[in-house]
Amino acid sequence: MSKDIKSPANTTEVQQDLDIGNNIYAKSYKGQHLPTAPGRHYCVVTCMDSRIDVFPAFGMHLGDAHVIRNAGGSARDALRSIVISQQYLNTKEVILIKHTRCGLEMFTDPEADAMLEERRGKQALETVRQAGSGHWHAFGNQKVDEATREDVDFLKSSGCLVDGTEVSGWVFDVEKGRVKRVA
Amino acid sequence: MSKDIKSPANTTEVQQDLDIGNNIYAKSYKGQHLPTAPGRHYCVVTCMDSRIDVFPAFGMHLGDAHVIRNAGGSARDALRSIVISQQYLNTKEVILIKHTRCGLEMFTDPEADAMLEERRGKQALETVRQAGSGHWHAFGNQKVDEATREDVDFLKSSGCLVDGTEVSGWVFDVEKGRVKRVA
Repeated sequence: MSKDIKSPANTTEVQQDLDIGNNIYAKSYKGQHLPTAPGRHYCVVTCMDSRIDVFPAFGMHLGDAHVIRNAGGSARDALRSIVISQQYLNTKEVILIKHTRCGLEMFTDPEADAMLEERRGKQALETVRQAGSGHWHAFGNQKVDEATREDVDFLKSSGCLVDGTEVSGWVFDVEKGRVKRVA
Repeated sequence: MSKDIKSPANTTEVQQDLDIGNNIYAKSYKGQHLPTAPGRHYCVVTCMDSRIDVFPAFGMHLGDAHVIRNAGGSARDALRSIVISQQYLNTKEVILIKHTRCGLEMFTDPEADAMLEERRGKQALETVRQAGSGHWHAFGNQKVDEATREDVDFLKSSGCLVDGTEVSGWVFDVEKGRVKRVA
């Protein structure tokens, strides 16, 4: 860790473990000759959920694919990144994977608006809206299979993907570690 | 793979490898008893880059942390997810990690606007804008260390994080596999 930024005294445990774990990882790192564009020309969009270790869980290897992750694995939230992935880095397929027991099933957009305004104030809510689309992309009123299909439909009909892009939708079962295809 | 969705004949190689790799992974999956809220109460924000295998590279274990990934590891793009992570799933620390040789250094926002309009039309550009903030968060005019510090400053001054949130900024060197702290 760069000693000029923080002394160990005000470094958190998480930061220390990142530095220690990464130091070990770097000794056998194999990515040094990989290009910026993904070798297998696809991108994965999935949730930020802590139970999803994307590379082994989805049969991927270093350099294969872009990995876009956000709360709920929202395709709309991911659209900017997908377009950059396709137009600047030549990917041609999108794999969208939501999962069971997702936090985004626990609330709706109006509830999240009210929650944030109450806890952090009107200005915080406005800042989040301006930083994104103004939507939380919660699916408290939907089942995850349905939310996945809707996101796949959104991408296919968006007009933003390159012609012939393959888009498929999957659900990862956090109790079994298994994916099933739903779209 | 659910046989009712697609016959093997029109399944892509990427989809087949996902299914095969995941089937093997599921046999030794250890996440079945983990809760939705991350055990170590932090979230990582990083780039979608294919050379970043987050769990081993950043010393993480299944269930530890949320992982938010987008083109460039943009904090603004990640803000919706960070707020959900904190307010609904109790995380209290943000680790922001950009990386060297990032695709987002290759262009600027006006260049991306012009590129998409030319290739996919005005409506596609409008759809991407509406799905997000209207920004590409490219840093073609900035060095990655500087872009990382700016994003950390944005988060700290956003007013959107819970009080006392620890935010640090790091850069992953894709040629060495090593992180260094820059903020």
